[in-house]
Amino acid sequence: MAAFNILGLCGSLRQGSLNMAALRAAADLVPEGVAIEIAAIGDIPLYNDDIRAIGTPAPVLTLAGQIAAADAVLIATPEYNYSIPGVLKNTIDWLSRCDPQPFRGKPVAIMGASPGMIGTARAQYDLRKVFVFLDAHVLNKPEIMIGGAGQKFDGTGVLTDATTRQFIAQQIIALRDWALRLRP
Amino acid sequence: MAAFNILGLCGSLRQGSLNMAALRAAADLVPEGVAIEIAAIGDIPLYNDDIRAIGTPAPVLTLAGQIAAADAVLIATPEYNYSIPGVLKNTIDWLSRCDPQPFRGKPVAIMGASPGMIGTARAQYDLRKVFVFLDAHVLNKPEIMIGGAGQKFDGTGVLTDATTRQFIAQQIIALRDWALRLRP
Amino acid sequence: MAAFNILGLCGSLRQGSLNMAALRAAADLVPEGVAIEIAAIGDIPLYNDDIRAIGTPAPVLTLAGQIAAADAVLIATPEYNYSIPGVLKNTIDWLSRCDPQPFRGKPVAIMGASPGMIGTARAQYDLRKVFVFLDAHVLNKPEIMIGGAGQKFDGTGVLTDATTRQFIAQQIIALRDWALRLRP
Amino acid sequence: MAAFNILGLCGSLRQGSLNMAALRAAADLVPEGVAIEIAAIGDIPLYNDDIRAIGTPAPVLTLAGQIAAADAVLIATPEYNYSIPGVLKNTIDWLSRCDPQPFRGKPVAIMGASPGMIGTARAQYDLRKVFVFLDAHVLNKPEIMIGGAGQKFDGTGVLTDATTRQFIAQQIIALRDWALRLRP
Repeated sequence: MAAFNILGLCGSLRQGSLNMAALRAAADLVPEGVAIEIAAIGDIPLYNDDIRAIGTPAPVLTLAGQIAAADAVLIATPEYNYSIPGVLKNTIDWLSRCDPQPFRGKPVAIMGASPGMIGTARAQYDLRKVFVFLDAHVLNKPEIMIGGAGQKFDGTGVLTDATTRQFIAQQIIALRDWALRLRP
Repeated sequence: MAAFNILGLCGSLRQGSLNMAALRAAADLVPEGVAIEIAAIGDIPLYNDDIRAIGTPAPVLTLAGQIAAADAVLIATPEYNYSIPGVLKNTIDWLSRCDPQPFRGKPVAIMGASPGMIGTARAQYDLRKVFVFLDAHVLNKPEIMIGGAGQKFDGTGVLTDATTRQFIAQQIIALRDWALRLRP
Repeated sequence: MAAFNILGLCGSLRQGSLNMAALRAAADLVPEGVAIEIAAIGDIPLYNDDIRAIGTPAPVLTLAGQIAAADAVLIATPEYNYSIPGVLKNTIDWLSRCDPQPFRGKPVAIMGASPGMIGTARAQYDLRKVFVFLDAHVLNKPEIMIGGAGQKFDGTGVLTDATTRQFIAQQIIALRDWALRLRP
Repeated sequence: MAAFNILGLCGSLRQGSLNMAALRAAADLVPEGVAIEIAAIGDIPLYNDDIRAIGTPAPVLTLAGQIAAADAVLIATPEYNYSIPGVLKNTIDWLSRCDPQPFRGKPVAIMGASPGMIGTARAQYDLRKVFVFLDAHVLNKPEIMIGGAGQKFDGTGVLTDATTRQFIAQQIIALRDWALRLRP
């Protein structure tokens, strides 16, 4: 265990996801004493409250436990159709019904990569609204919207753009500092 | 076939969903010449672009065909965590990748029921933003946000609130008129 | 009078406004039979309902009349602090209280120029939400978000970027066609 | 001077504003050691960057100083046309250009009163997005959306609804605690 543990969540299930690649880059760019573990969300079923009434699925409980145990959460997500990917939102919908609700009071940072110019801005503000309800503490700045992402990663999914690497490194430090500031 | 066919989509998978109940009420409240068929979205898997590359799942293709064949779409959705339910957004994410994209140029109306006071307003505006990208034509008015929905349906899911019934009847007529106005 | 008359509104009061420059470019790029007149909003006072109760200020009434007389409205606006400029929103707040409310049923297109990468996207979606209430019919596509706008106009405010000029010309045609399609 | 000083901003200029009445109620409901002073925004001109280049107007500088000196800011605002009133947004647009930018790092709480059911929700989320850019720290909860506000104040503008009074008292305490937690 590092001194400060961040759980990474990716909004895309695609193997070659640039957002997953951004999370891996983030995991490499941590300062000393910080570690990023990346969680899996591909096993979480479609939210159905009738299923929840019978029992919350095991992958949801596992993920809720990982979030609860983490010092902070880092979300890297694409934008689908001008908003949060359904896959990611569905995961959050399940987590929101866990007890304890794992995002309550949790420091969160958001980043996103997309081929287009807008760089997931629309998805990010919708996500920030969600976290008002969930009572998480979302980092204001730096905001990371990686537009034209196709040119910023190499063919093996390594983030090669120096400016973006620097922004990500800064965001991780800002997230850690924000979390420490919020600590009771 | 009626003269004007509306496809209903529900944002909740719960058996006793009040939004599904609202759709059923809508199906009863249609004027002559209009029919509402309610589609199923429970079989649609989590969106994964790797799966799409292999082949779009059959339930997605079926739903895309239903939307393409309909004269208009009526969405009744709860609000989960201040935004669109992941389940519904996931369905839309799949549909958005079909060719032809079935929402393009399609007249759409939105309603929502929730126990709280806000009545799904936050989810509805996020959904409207999604439909800008998808180039659907979303009806402006009447907006239907059924707050305090627990009191407006009886124990068997029948919409008993007269005012809400009237709003829904008006929205269906407005949707039909909007669609006819947009017809080339 | 042209066959099709568009009223242009600019969200910035600055003399050298790039959004005003974009509107002027639009006025040059119209196809035959279309004309764009640019309205002034600098004389409209801060909205105060006590003042409205005494009498709507003359510049508001003038502008309401211009909108009512136009076949469509084209808004070019910067983004201030991630949303609609207060100046533009204040103008809309006044107009919304006129009788008849001039945006009701009016075809509207939105564009925006900004120095940053996002190109006013956040302001534009807030504006679209406003027009749901006002029951205007906002054009879906093409959306025009002129990022890096400092490089796309010359020192005298002439839009020199060929791609942007083409987008604007397309938006005007799309707005006209949208308006004609909506005509009773 | 109290131990903890909150500056109140009202989004409406109307004399009989229910949001101003809500702010006055808040000022009465403070716990010991907390004081609320209500600022005036009626003298702030329309934002024009050419005017700013000559010199920021005195009322803007005064307000920026009041915000800088306050321990936290409490905004009570109506919703105009589904978003932030132009008058309030215009004030924020001016403040955002002051140096130092007074909202940076400032704890902020938002409340709103409206006659309708939604109770200013749409305006509040737009405002939260603005404060991401301004790097303020907006309180998550309790959110205060006073719907049906006409029935909750008496004819002299006194907030008589006990539940709303309690919510406001709770929000002030939460704002103070949030500010103390964020204190370096």
